[in-house]
Amino acid sequence: MIIDWKKIAEKIFEELKQKIKNSWKKYKLTVILVWKNSPSLRYIKQKEKWANYVWIEFNLLEFDDNISEEKLISEIKKLNTNKEVTAFMVQLPLPKHINSEKIIENISPEKDADWFSPVNLWKVVLWDENALIPCTPAGIMELLKEYKIEVSWKNVTIIWRSNIVWKPVANLLINAWATTTICNSKTKNLKYFTKNSDIIISATWSPHLLKVEMLNKNSVIIDVWFSVIDKKIFWDADFKEIEKNGNLITPVPGWVGPMTVAMLMKNTVKAGK
Amino acid sequence: MIIDWKKIAEKIFEELKQKIKNSWKKYKLTVILVWKNSPSLRYIKQKEKWANYVWIEFNLLEFDDNISEEKLISEIKKLNTNKEVTAFMVQLPLPKHINSEKIIENISPEKDADWFSPVNLWKVVLWDENALIPCTPAGIMELLKEYKIEVSWKNVTIIWRSNIVWKPVANLLINAWATTTICNSKTKNLKYFTKNSDIIISATWSPHLLKVEMLNKNSVIIDVWFSVIDKKIFWDADFKEIEKNGNLITPVPGWVGPMTVAMLMKNTVKAGK
Repeated sequence: MIIDWKKIAEKIFEELKQKIKNSWKKYKLTVILVWKNSPSLRYIKQKEKWANYVWIEFNLLEFDDNISEEKLISEIKKLNTNKEVTAFMVQLPLPKHINSEKIIENISPEKDADWFSPVNLWKVVLWDENALIPCTPAGIMELLKEYKIEVSWKNVTIIWRSNIVWKPVANLLINAWATTTICNSKTKNLKYFTKNSDIIISATWSPHLLKVEMLNKNSVIIDVWFSVIDKKIFWDADFKEIEKNGNLITPVPGWVGPMTVAMLMKNTVKAGK
Repeated sequence: MIIDWKKIAEKIFEELKQKIKNSWKKYKLTVILVWKNSPSLRYIKQKEKWANYVWIEFNLLEFDDNISEEKLISEIKKLNTNKEVTAFMVQLPLPKHINSEKIIENISPEKDADWFSPVNLWKVVLWDENALIPCTPAGIMELLKEYKIEVSWKNVTIIWRSNIVWKPVANLLINAWATTTICNSKTKNLKYFTKNSDIIISATWSPHLLKVEMLNKNSVIIDVWFSVIDKKIFWDADFKEIEKNGNLITPVPGWVGPMTVAMLMKNTVKAGK
């Protein structure tokens, strides 16, 4: 059976739109773009589209890709105090001469639409129930909730990919009383863990890493990443076989994208409070 | 076989003492004490003893336990800018009317001897190799290193206790390429994970939770917490039987204490740089 990311995302967009339409408050989301690679441009288009849809004013702030770290930080400090901007984010990746961590450290936690500043991450790790959480991890948790997939008491295996996704997800799951295993490419016997898992979140670059024989009948598969080989897209999970096996699985190529954007909009509204 | 925490801690104290004696630099560690319960007083005594031993000036700053949150924060801000103080820490727990997180948030990351401020924790989570890390987790990692117990590629199970210990430990292990499972009191089948573990770090309050039949021959056991029942101390691991079985295990009642204090002194010296 397929998990319908898109339907859930659309439900959230609809709710936000009603909320904002019926309120006096104005919201403005600024996205900083430095490195104009095509995935970044594509992601930004989606953000713009959905911001407009839910009545959040969208503003793209572009800089030359040879902008200095100092200059970029000073621009961020301006946004931190600009009362018109509800929330903002820096589209990653940045060019190599800029230290992303240093940039993120300078974003005011109150306006950090991506919720990746030290204070916000700290709140996630330390289990602050009021914490606002990074968009993709928040999207995954929301999806599980909408599908009434209980996390507490369950075994969850995360097969890693990035700081932005898997560490916050791991911490959220741990907080929610899941027995959580974080695997990596050096894991000795991945099957030992996946076979015993109620939920598997995979975000590697290994085509069809997850096969039917590695799962149990009830495992739910959240597949977050894919690889491209010879212009063909391969997801981490062998989707067709797994779906045939009766497991609940995220669709290919439905992807986590819409949910992540939905969480960005939700965070913007939260930041406005 | 027994893991000798104390020997390793003493080696670190000796190295620090030589380093400080042979340098012109002066170090001063301040500990803030609000709630004067007897474990806190005992921990502070140890800190004072070892600070003196390694030639770090020790200073205890006591406040009344009805001090307001605002007043405590203003005292912390004074220490943040006091040039004589190399590093400082707040002895936890604090009285209930004070929000510990808010207090810790106000400690300057540069002087945070316990390394528990948002920025420092963030650096641990995000794998900053220069990050200074919370004392008990740092002690555990140092111990494994001294005993040449490789972490990369290994299966590690953490049986939880607290934000201060297990979450940073988990993040450090994940960063070091360990396949890391975080269990809790709701874990369905703890044995499934422990049986498959190269290293088990336990910090619960369950007397003799870990028994021989839950381990494999090669599991290393780091037992960090204990419970007291009828004035008798019970550690998480059934020490006698496990040692007889030939596993490498931390001693009872050797405890992690000396290592934690050693890391506190090491952090103070690092903060002075």
